[in-house]
Amino acid sequence: MSGSTFGTIFSMTTWGESHGKGLGVVVDGCPAGVSLCEEDIQAFLDRRKPGQSRYTTARKEGDQVEILSGVFEGKTTGTPISMIVRNEDQRSRDYSEIASYYRPGHADYTFDAKYGFRDYRGGGRSSGRETIGRVAAGAIAVKVLEEMGISFCTYTRSIGPVTIETFDCEEISNNAVYMPDAAAATQAKKYLEECMSQKNSAGGVIECRISHVPAGIGDPVFNKLDANLARAIMSIGAVKGVEIGDGFAVTQSNGLENNDEFFYDEEHQLQKHTNHAGGILGGISDGSEIILRAAVKPTASISSTQHTVNKNGENIEINIKGRHDPVIVPRAVVVVESMAAITILDSMLMGMGAKLENLIKIYG
Amino acid sequence: MSGSTFGTIFSMTTWGESHGKGLGVVVDGCPAGVSLCEEDIQAFLDRRKPGQSRYTTARKEGDQVEILSGVFEGKTTGTPISMIVRNEDQRSRDYSEIASYYRPGHADYTFDAKYGFRDYRGGGRSSGRETIGRVAAGAIAVKVLEEMGISFCTYTRSIGPVTIETFDCEEISNNAVYMPDAAAATQAKKYLEECMSQKNSAGGVIECRISHVPAGIGDPVFNKLDANLARAIMSIGAVKGVEIGDGFAVTQSNGLENNDEFFYDEEHQLQKHTNHAGGILGGISDGSEIILRAAVKPTASISSTQHTVNKNGENIEINIKGRHDPVIVPRAVVVVESMAAITILDSMLMGMGAKLENLIKIYG
Amino acid sequence: MSGSTFGTIFSMTTWGESHGKGLGVVVDGCPAGVSLCEEDIQAFLDRRKPGQSRYTTARKEGDQVEILSGVFEGKTTGTPISMIVRNEDQRSRDYSEIASYYRPGHADYTFDAKYGFRDYRGGGRSSGRETIGRVAAGAIAVKVLEEMGISFCTYTRSIGPVTIETFDCEEISNNAVYMPDAAAATQAKKYLEECMSQKNSAGGVIECRISHVPAGIGDPVFNKLDANLARAIMSIGAVKGVEIGDGFAVTQSNGLENNDEFFYDEEHQLQKHTNHAGGILGGISDGSEIILRAAVKPTASISSTQHTVNKNGENIEINIKGRHDPVIVPRAVVVVESMAAITILDSMLMGMGAKLENLIKIYG
Amino acid sequence: MSGSTFGTIFSMTTWGESHGKGLGVVVDGCPAGVSLCEEDIQAFLDRRKPGQSRYTTARKEGDQVEILSGVFEGKTTGTPISMIVRNEDQRSRDYSEIASYYRPGHADYTFDAKYGFRDYRGGGRSSGRETIGRVAAGAIAVKVLEEMGISFCTYTRSIGPVTIETFDCEEISNNAVYMPDAAAATQAKKYLEECMSQKNSAGGVIECRISHVPAGIGDPVFNKLDANLARAIMSIGAVKGVEIGDGFAVTQSNGLENNDEFFYDEEHQLQKHTNHAGGILGGISDGSEIILRAAVKPTASISSTQHTVNKNGENIEINIKGRHDPVIVPRAVVVVESMAAITILDSMLMGMGAKLENLIKIYG
Repeated sequence: MSGSTFGTIFSMTTWGESHGKGLGVVVDGCPAGVSLCEEDIQAFLDRRKPGQSRYTTARKEGDQVEILSGVFEGKTTGTPISMIVRNEDQRSRDYSEIASYYRPGHADYTFDAKYGFRDYRGGGRSSGRETIGRVAAGAIAVKVLEEMGISFCTYTRSIGPVTIETFDCEEISNNAVYMPDAAAATQAKKYLEECMSQKNSAGGVIECRISHVPAGIGDPVFNKLDANLARAIMSIGAVKGVEIGDGFAVTQSNGLENNDEFFYDEEHQLQKHTNHAGGILGGISDGSEIILRAAVKPTASISSTQHTVNKNGENIEINIKGRHDPVIVPRAVVVVESMAAITILDSMLMGMGAKLENLIKIYG
Repeated sequence: MSGSTFGTIFSMTTWGESHGKGLGVVVDGCPAGVSLCEEDIQAFLDRRKPGQSRYTTARKEGDQVEILSGVFEGKTTGTPISMIVRNEDQRSRDYSEIASYYRPGHADYTFDAKYGFRDYRGGGRSSGRETIGRVAAGAIAVKVLEEMGISFCTYTRSIGPVTIETFDCEEISNNAVYMPDAAAATQAKKYLEECMSQKNSAGGVIECRISHVPAGIGDPVFNKLDANLARAIMSIGAVKGVEIGDGFAVTQSNGLENNDEFFYDEEHQLQKHTNHAGGILGGISDGSEIILRAAVKPTASISSTQHTVNKNGENIEINIKGRHDPVIVPRAVVVVESMAAITILDSMLMGMGAKLENLIKIYG
Repeated sequence: MSGSTFGTIFSMTTWGESHGKGLGVVVDGCPAGVSLCEEDIQAFLDRRKPGQSRYTTARKEGDQVEILSGVFEGKTTGTPISMIVRNEDQRSRDYSEIASYYRPGHADYTFDAKYGFRDYRGGGRSSGRETIGRVAAGAIAVKVLEEMGISFCTYTRSIGPVTIETFDCEEISNNAVYMPDAAAATQAKKYLEECMSQKNSAGGVIECRISHVPAGIGDPVFNKLDANLARAIMSIGAVKGVEIGDGFAVTQSNGLENNDEFFYDEEHQLQKHTNHAGGILGGISDGSEIILRAAVKPTASISSTQHTVNKNGENIEINIKGRHDPVIVPRAVVVVESMAAITILDSMLMGMGAKLENLIKIYG
Repeated sequence: MSGSTFGTIFSMTTWGESHGKGLGVVVDGCPAGVSLCEEDIQAFLDRRKPGQSRYTTARKEGDQVEILSGVFEGKTTGTPISMIVRNEDQRSRDYSEIASYYRPGHADYTFDAKYGFRDYRGGGRSSGRETIGRVAAGAIAVKVLEEMGISFCTYTRSIGPVTIETFDCEEISNNAVYMPDAAAATQAKKYLEECMSQKNSAGGVIECRISHVPAGIGDPVFNKLDANLARAIMSIGAVKGVEIGDGFAVTQSNGLENNDEFFYDEEHQLQKHTNHAGGILGGISDGSEIILRAAVKPTASISSTQHTVNKNGENIEINIKGRHDPVIVPRAVVVVESMAAITILDSMLMGMGAKLENLIKIYG
């Protein structure tokens, strides 16, 4: 499948460049009969919108979404849902300098290597704005999953050296860095101020917890639920690592400790005493909370002087102009949630016929 | 695509259960004209074969591969290469006990939740033996990549608390734990002895370095090379985390340090001073070494007493019989290499027409 | 893959309903470096535009296309090309009657059976307007194929009982029914007048000839070039049959006659004396002209009285209002060409690595 | 997806060449819990077995199938079902002559054009024996569909100039040409005797009728049920045309006649007075019988003298040795049925979540 389409039954195809006419997504395979309006989408897009704090770019991006198809009388029809966000902030600007060299940490060079040339305005297709389509699609996936009682809690776990120590779900939307720990948020903001004063940037970890996914979702071999989640999350620009459950920490544990023991609770429900596995065993959900983490690298666009090369074969020094987020972690929180939701919904749709009795339930 | 097929142009479809008649793989889309014989495959399979040391199971598995199709007069024909390994070690045994309960850390429960029942003999489809097909396919992918000068170096980076400190490529095949550091290997073996004496098990980290992948491989959005690698690696049973380049460590770094600066060397070749990115920028290879790591959990099968549930709704204690690897990291090294090779070859085949001039070069 | 995406490397995802905000397509996987502008697309869309003659609907549809992404400085960038056509002719109209019953020959009933309800305005997603996206994508595919010397000749072969008897390529665009035979065109128009006077409609056959496709395109088993063309063409609404080369006539022939004998011509080029096979042998192109035909059913929308049922469980009589094409064959000519072009280009991109030497040519 | 895999959820991957070690298929995505044994498969394979009459080759092929995986305690487990048929009739023979030239009507030349060389023994991958894997997979699909009350009736409709005139389902398996009309069968056999005496061959039409497919199966755009059936059927070697319902005859009909009018019968069930559409409207099943036809070309292997070229650049005359079927239509009947069954089952699995209420029924 071509590289801008994700998902098999519930699928999205994104398009658009940072400084083109707009960005958008076509969501196909959404079940018919789901209530949906532009406000549902906009609420998600607003979570990734810049200009909301000192730590996100000041560019004013309205990012108003328009639904172009697939919804009729307030409900999804089962046909493609096309959504568009027009680019508003297209100041005419001189890009000839940026066109001439390769920014360190960016995809400038690799795009040229692959395609022979690139749309160099604001990062083109590899801009963070590419995630607009993902988030619009994610808003729909989350809505469908909610109908089955599945819910998401996604937040910033760490920024640079500052990691959360307490967990208060309510707190997440109270601070500009989307941390569930007010004290850590305050520290993180202080750390970001330092980064900014040094014309530098920070990275961090995003964590996503998904509740009430029924047991039995995912596949035993290549379409393991965790494998598909790993691809989904690693496909977000700037993500360099993905963990499920205890992740890399399992390598320091041992079998006796790491194995989550099963038991029946008082209502005779199967439960686990611990959840080191992060809700997935052998690629298939076990009914407990699904937990995943993404490692996000420090923003590549910094205003410090850097060494690089230009297309004339010269070694040069550059200073990238413009204002950039000192950290992209908070804005990427909703992107992680979106990608996770799309992956899980698609896995659920793909697995509906895993048992003959299910086929008979629907068609028999 | 169904869950036992991986790859789009160069694809493999694996089949088989631990204690069924055999296991195998169908490799499709391999370019025609590649020299290939059973010895090429067997050499790879032998790298994952058990019974080679105290730290791998004593079961004697010949795992002799037979090529059934797709090779003619010593060369691949472009049509499917079907390979089979017959199961030899199928002692008649009583599996009724294991059939009745859910082993902690295993996929027993999740298989039942998805499919309604399972082949419980030796883990069935979720056994580590499922990787035989992957490795047989990987042997072919590595062979094709070698024709383009691409080479792999894959090894154990850590087992439990023991991490390599030196790097000697020659050393990898000299020790039973596949570490490129003889001293660390000795320590690791000592640690594994302890685990065994405590009826416990260990995890670890596998690292894979891939040299001479040309710049321009991979896709900018969902088929980022790192995203596809992440899925490939996370689809290996027991892997709980994947990193590219510096991975989770980037979250503690900053932009100025983490950005790999470009320069032209004396031969006017574009190079990078550092490689924190692990050879991939914006989802596309940059020509430097590709580096990835997998976190492998401690073997779930341990002989210590554990608590769990049976299918009669009772909370029980179990002792899993049989001999099991105290660590699966060394045997999984070749699996990681195989999955990486298949992913990269498929990306190269998918991207051949990224530029119009390439199309004309082949068809014009 | 979800049902609104077609193609694996060169792919299109269409969206939109007859009376929604618009229709469009996202084309992904187009090679970078192809000159492209809106006029290239518009020229194709104009070939399917209604209101051009008495035999196509009078509704005035501008169908002006806008390219939203994927083209930079006049060339494709390799990233998704999103195109939109806004619906202009959305007269507010009372659709309550049409919403209440199932039109014979239409998808009204089957949409309800699948999705539970439908966008009933003007056919919704199953309207002929859905082909706008296909034609916009087809314009690009034809442009890329032209760069390799491949050309298309597509026309109406028959309407009702009137079949072409002579072939003059120049004539095709001279008459409203796109026939390469002026006399047949005159007869066909007379026949259509009769149909209209009887509130009835006609079907016909579309033929597509594709020249200079190199030998070696397509696959030997499921992705046979003819198999993929058959799907592509049969996916066009109203098509009920597809033939390659002599098609159904081969069943009346015999081996000696039907086998196309090979010979070397004076320039030592391999040729065939005949082309009963329509340019495809064993699923792979043989270098001669590719020939395919589509059977198009009579327009289902007719103003004669018809019997049907409503959603209240009653047997009723209906008279469908509005003006409709008495035949859709001429407007579908460019749709057939588009689908064929997309299929062939995708097959060419998929097959670039069929030989190891090709891989080395691009990457070695 | 690579060319030897067909289907998205219920998928098959076939492998093997005419004179290699064997042929087989891996079926993935089969629902768990279906009773299955080798006899179920063998019964289907026997329907395509040669050597059953004067009109099929005398080569004795046992074609005994072995199930290697995916079935446990007599039921499918949901994991891949690998099946193999070993080639028995591999007489050592001199193929050097056939290796040197291109047989008319065969894929010899096109394979060389695509892959650079080919397995020339008995047609290699493009042999009719490739369909063994399809039929083994089809046997499973038919079994699953039977569990939902869906049944198939597939037969020879015509051979050369002889077309059936009466229909007696019982008769189909009574005659060597699988015709539901004893008189036509007698005529057809007489016609085939003539062909054989003239060292010539015949083609024909296969018809497949599928009953009790529920309304609502298939997709409105590219995955129309008829589009996917067209690809499935056209992917069978020697098929040059596909029709749904009235097929090419619709082009001679008119809207008033061709539209199938709906009515409610006495049990208030929605019915159609006619079925010109062949059970599919707008790409989606309407609950009436699905009807499709395949045009099969005359056997390309004939013993008459033919002109062709060799690989030395010479125009030559050839006489193909060996005994070949004068017609392949009867043996292809079960292949058509298999491909249709696989396509319909896959469409049903893909469409289970078309409505939100279905998702909730399974997971809610």
